[in-house]
Amino acid sequence: MKGFFKVQTPDQLYRKIERFKPLSSGKVSIEDSLHRVLSEDILSPTNLPEFPRSTVDGFALRAMDTYGASEKNPVILHLVGEIPMGQVSDIQAKEEEAVKVATGGMVPKGADAVEMVEYTEWVDSQTLHVFKTVSPLENVIQVGEDVKAGEIVLRKGHWVRAQDLGLMAGIGKTDAHVYLRPRVGIISSGDEIVPIEMTPQPGEVRDMNRYTIASMVKETGGIPLFLGIARDRFNNLKEIIELGLKESDMVVITGGSSVGTLDLAHDVIQSLPGAEILAHGVSVRPGKPTLLAEVDGKPFLGLPGHPVSAMVIFHLFGKTILNILSGRSKEEVRFGKRLKAKASRNIPSVSGREDYVRVKLEEREGVLLAHPIFGKSGAISNMVNADGLMRIAINDEGLEEGEEAEVILI
Amino acid sequence: MKGFFKVQTPDQLYRKIERFKPLSSGKVSIEDSLHRVLSEDILSPTNLPEFPRSTVDGFALRAMDTYGASEKNPVILHLVGEIPMGQVSDIQAKEEEAVKVATGGMVPKGADAVEMVEYTEWVDSQTLHVFKTVSPLENVIQVGEDVKAGEIVLRKGHWVRAQDLGLMAGIGKTDAHVYLRPRVGIISSGDEIVPIEMTPQPGEVRDMNRYTIASMVKETGGIPLFLGIARDRFNNLKEIIELGLKESDMVVITGGSSVGTLDLAHDVIQSLPGAEILAHGVSVRPGKPTLLAEVDGKPFLGLPGHPVSAMVIFHLFGKTILNILSGRSKEEVRFGKRLKAKASRNIPSVSGREDYVRVKLEEREGVLLAHPIFGKSGAISNMVNADGLMRIAINDEGLEEGEEAEVILI
Repeated sequence: MKGFFKVQTPDQLYRKIERFKPLSSGKVSIEDSLHRVLSEDILSPTNLPEFPRSTVDGFALRAMDTYGASEKNPVILHLVGEIPMGQVSDIQAKEEEAVKVATGGMVPKGADAVEMVEYTEWVDSQTLHVFKTVSPLENVIQVGEDVKAGEIVLRKGHWVRAQDLGLMAGIGKTDAHVYLRPRVGIISSGDEIVPIEMTPQPGEVRDMNRYTIASMVKETGGIPLFLGIARDRFNNLKEIIELGLKESDMVVITGGSSVGTLDLAHDVIQSLPGAEILAHGVSVRPGKPTLLAEVDGKPFLGLPGHPVSAMVIFHLFGKTILNILSGRSKEEVRFGKRLKAKASRNIPSVSGREDYVRVKLEEREGVLLAHPIFGKSGAISNMVNADGLMRIAINDEGLEEGEEAEVILI
Repeated sequence: MKGFFKVQTPDQLYRKIERFKPLSSGKVSIEDSLHRVLSEDILSPTNLPEFPRSTVDGFALRAMDTYGASEKNPVILHLVGEIPMGQVSDIQAKEEEAVKVATGGMVPKGADAVEMVEYTEWVDSQTLHVFKTVSPLENVIQVGEDVKAGEIVLRKGHWVRAQDLGLMAGIGKTDAHVYLRPRVGIISSGDEIVPIEMTPQPGEVRDMNRYTIASMVKETGGIPLFLGIARDRFNNLKEIIELGLKESDMVVITGGSSVGTLDLAHDVIQSLPGAEILAHGVSVRPGKPTLLAEVDGKPFLGLPGHPVSAMVIFHLFGKTILNILSGRSKEEVRFGKRLKAKASRNIPSVSGREDYVRVKLEEREGVLLAHPIFGKSGAISNMVNADGLMRIAINDEGLEEGEEAEVILI
């Protein structure tokens, strides 16, 4: 068995991953841009709003005409008309005049504020009591107050959310340029692995990794392509890896449960022209036997065969690579994927490696508690019972009860 | 204008929403069950693992034979064979015997533990020095230790994640029963609303709500069906609402920006047989003009026309309804959608309504800070700049700097 001659710390691995580049891009309708990454800055061709709008139902008027108004001493204004929704009007509000407007309706010329209907009372059909002072611009959205023409409203590298689509719709943008979704070739390997439709013979196990890796690829915006189960033989592995590198933007292989397969994958990669091994072994538990390489600019990631270890490593490094290929801006932090929680009891660890402990989260009296689920790293049921992976830093010898640490939600 | 004759608190609305029922279910391949909701309990037909497996590369042996072993005083064992991956073997480990196994390989009869290869040294090709004591069951996963045959591994109402797929694969489950995805009919209304492809005339605005609502429906696992822009006339609105109720599992209408459209929608709903108005107005800001009804068991949700108000109300109540229609278990908390953060400055509010303030999040020295983005509720750019909505409870008069409150990520 070969040693881990290039064992890296997680930080070293993250730095090596930075060499990969975003894929090319294409144009899609904005509806299809949801949860994809913009490959262009988006400039607004227009002001939003394009006309001064009222934010309330009420009466457009000159703010100064309301000065001094109170519950006991209303001012009297003359109604000179109404602006229907969706229409403009030549009506002007002059001194001591008011124009009826609805929320979202146009504020007419002359008026600089809108009095809410709640603070008015009809005297007769043409005359109004106003009981409250308003300031200039009160209850009015001015032209361009939301978005100014020529302004960059969304930046290249931004991950598109519901409200971003709303903004694009509002400025009349019907299509957007987004980065292509990475196609990820997935290979399972190991002589003991059988397709899940088969009944395993003694000594064999069903292929879980195909499904967990494909799911995590989808969650990160990639397109999984399953390439098959490779046998632990150089030629078989080489053939399937070469196919993967040809057909996809990234290749992920899960080793058999022994370290042997990744050694074999290592030898296959080294035999390819344009290949560079970036790491063979990472100081993470679970997940030490990890292989990272670049082949002609494409990332190749070899994961441990243990389903739990494979998931942990993919959460850390596979998703990071996919985000880079997807063009996602590094500056853009996604809250909610990683939380802080307090250890509900002492959690031991060994210094010199980053430890990811499966935890069940519980909110108790406003405090987020992480209950560790101890168990062997092969036990998928522990992952199913877990809400997240709690990180114990590389130089820590564990967490004490009540100590806070980061949890990656899974 | 009609008053809000049935203004409800958010809690009252949540309770009314509980009346809705999950849709029916169907069978999909497990790959297609990702991020959907199980409509069946899943029992394992098999033990996992099905045979005792080693969790390390090393030598299977009887733990008692290693007692007393140390760096200075190794015990001597005789190698009697090797178990290849994916295979069984009749080899037995008897007294003072060892069998070579790889990680994931079968632990042979007679052996009750595995010594890691790191703590052994060859004396000759048949003889081994063992330098460390192991306990019984050390480095062995026993039959059924991960999952026991007959055990319920996943429950009805569970939202399927990557690791759940892994477990289903591991027990040989190829298809799963999941709830149908809710089809949500979306209607935009308001005489000032035009499709985004059109250049708005003065007084008109483009239809943003169609895009934000459809996106939030997708994010919650629903299928959006856009039904068109309705004019503010009873007959036009009635026709399109009836179509929506016929073609979909839930209907969402966004009012024009004035309260008038929802009043009209209210009258349309009341004119339908089997309809019940559950709320007309909710004490939430932004978003007071909210209409909730049930028509023949189907939810009908009327949202304010302001894009920001519409989004806030849909995040609160629309998503809750969709989760119920999707069969998602109420007990299952999804961490990460809601976080706790500290207000970076005083945020004023008015008692008597729940306030949702747009905030930008920042992690500073391990503390999650929420910076309020003040602005008129019609400004979509504020939503674009925000990471979340910070909740100020109904009886609070605002948050003080440093005070902690819940943030819904958007």
